[in-house]
Amino acid sequence: MFDFPQLSAFRGGNGKVRVIGHRGAREIMPENTIEGFEFTLSLGVKALEFDVLLTADQVPVITHNHRVSAAATRNPDGQWLQGIEPKVATLSLAQLQELDVGGLDGRTRYGQKFSDQAFLNGVRVPSLTALLELVTKTAYLDVFLMLELKSDPLIKEKTHEYNQLVSAVVALLREYDVSDRTVLHSFDWDMLKECRRQAPDIPTSYLSQASIHEADHDEDTPDLVHLKFIRKKDSLPKAIAEAGGQLWCPHFSDVTSDLVDEAHAIGLLVSTWTVNKRNDILSMISAGVDGIVTDHPGRVQRCLLERGLHW
Amino acid sequence: MFDFPQLSAFRGGNGKVRVIGHRGAREIMPENTIEGFEFTLSLGVKALEFDVLLTADQVPVITHNHRVSAAATRNPDGQWLQGIEPKVATLSLAQLQELDVGGLDGRTRYGQKFSDQAFLNGVRVPSLTALLELVTKTAYLDVFLMLELKSDPLIKEKTHEYNQLVSAVVALLREYDVSDRTVLHSFDWDMLKECRRQAPDIPTSYLSQASIHEADHDEDTPDLVHLKFIRKKDSLPKAIAEAGGQLWCPHFSDVTSDLVDEAHAIGLLVSTWTVNKRNDILSMISAGVDGIVTDHPGRVQRCLLERGLHW
Repeated sequence: MFDFPQLSAFRGGNGKVRVIGHRGAREIMPENTIEGFEFTLSLGVKALEFDVLLTADQVPVITHNHRVSAAATRNPDGQWLQGIEPKVATLSLAQLQELDVGGLDGRTRYGQKFSDQAFLNGVRVPSLTALLELVTKTAYLDVFLMLELKSDPLIKEKTHEYNQLVSAVVALLREYDVSDRTVLHSFDWDMLKECRRQAPDIPTSYLSQASIHEADHDEDTPDLVHLKFIRKKDSLPKAIAEAGGQLWCPHFSDVTSDLVDEAHAIGLLVSTWTVNKRNDILSMISAGVDGIVTDHPGRVQRCLLERGLHW
Repeated sequence: MFDFPQLSAFRGGNGKVRVIGHRGAREIMPENTIEGFEFTLSLGVKALEFDVLLTADQVPVITHNHRVSAAATRNPDGQWLQGIEPKVATLSLAQLQELDVGGLDGRTRYGQKFSDQAFLNGVRVPSLTALLELVTKTAYLDVFLMLELKSDPLIKEKTHEYNQLVSAVVALLREYDVSDRTVLHSFDWDMLKECRRQAPDIPTSYLSQASIHEADHDEDTPDLVHLKFIRKKDSLPKAIAEAGGQLWCPHFSDVTSDLVDEAHAIGLLVSTWTVNKRNDILSMISAGVDGIVTDHPGRVQRCLLERGLHW
């Protein structure tokens, strides 16, 4: 058995609820960018959530969708991406980094959903290496990573895909000596099995979403994965513990204090996503979760302080 | 006559409306702090508005109220300031900088008004020097300052007060060679007269508020000054031009496109404060102002982009 020192950073209680910056701080800054991560860390947030995919040249990069999102991407000439969105897996790192992901197109539904997000120029999809360079600076040695591995639902033969992504990611975590500051996080529970096989010393974090939400329709994951979870809605903590996971990460609409208690009773930590509205934040605090994954970390911190809590 | 090169940074038109960060970005970060100014500049905002007072040892510092605000200030032991709020003018810089101004007390009306503002620890009231050190870094040589001089309404004999504050501020602007990147800004039009006497090469910016707003009651200036303006509500541009000013800075509820046109026709620039809600931002863009002073610069930038404008 491993003692997983990083779990202490994701454990609530004793007056604390952990604040985890979702893709940085998506309500304020462009998601999954170094600029957004630096802002999030400047707030005293100690855990970052972000998404990792491989480029065509097998470089782990930090971006959410399998296809480059036109709503968030401009060509080198400054125009919004036109036509079919290319798959990240078909672009080299150099090709991907020709694109500017510093701002959202306000004409799109996604752009309107995050209408306060800053609009920057010259922002690139970061490599995982770039983030690891940041969090291994002296000022950020107390920062923890909730690293989400994205699995492509259109790929049928998963073994090779899992092996490639997990081995590329784990190699970098070893190289930068941050294995003990990372949890590996996914909607794809088979991906997490491969994580445990390759890196049994790194805890695994199981995402779930048992109900579907209109608001998520611009994201490319939840629609495709929720069917896996809907039938086990009331037995998720047990299933995760049996699978060997350490964290359960349910959508906040699926959280009840009974389920949180059940998860705690069998040794799981609970971090809920993606909680942005004051009322939802306060209700998740009341439900007793360990951590809150949020697009607006400053708002969550203020809600915690109002309840006499810290992060 | 001076040609006031800095006015180009406050002039709208040609597809631009200028975004001016109010005390930095008060909806996101603690107001009038280096941390807040750095965040604001990271958004590509090129003009900062902030407030200057003198300490007991005659050091220009950046803070809004004449009395240290208990709602935003913690003692060195981390407790909210208790009892009578001390006047900034009675504290030395060293005494003032023992206090932490990194967060708002959520139990107060002011804290509730800015419920999304980040809560940081170990943040100090900056000296004007600290900000001038920041904006004279290579990356920020294109940044402009809207420097508000606060006049204490409880001081009857103004000559000495004006002379002291203006000479201390102007000496620093000269020392850092930023006179041609600064406009001097005040509700106290006599203060601005003293500015022109001491520094005729620096443009002056005339604040006004002709109507009173419930929302401003936690601030210590507008209540006390609005009486000066209410009677000249419809003749403010003319009065400012006659007084020798270059900018008119009305509260947004006093702005009409007719008044903006009138101001432009007599050579004034118009920057309006403090515009935070989407609808108000869009209506100020429609009214044709040159600049928008805002607590949420990212939101204003997004509104401008939606209208095909830039900043």
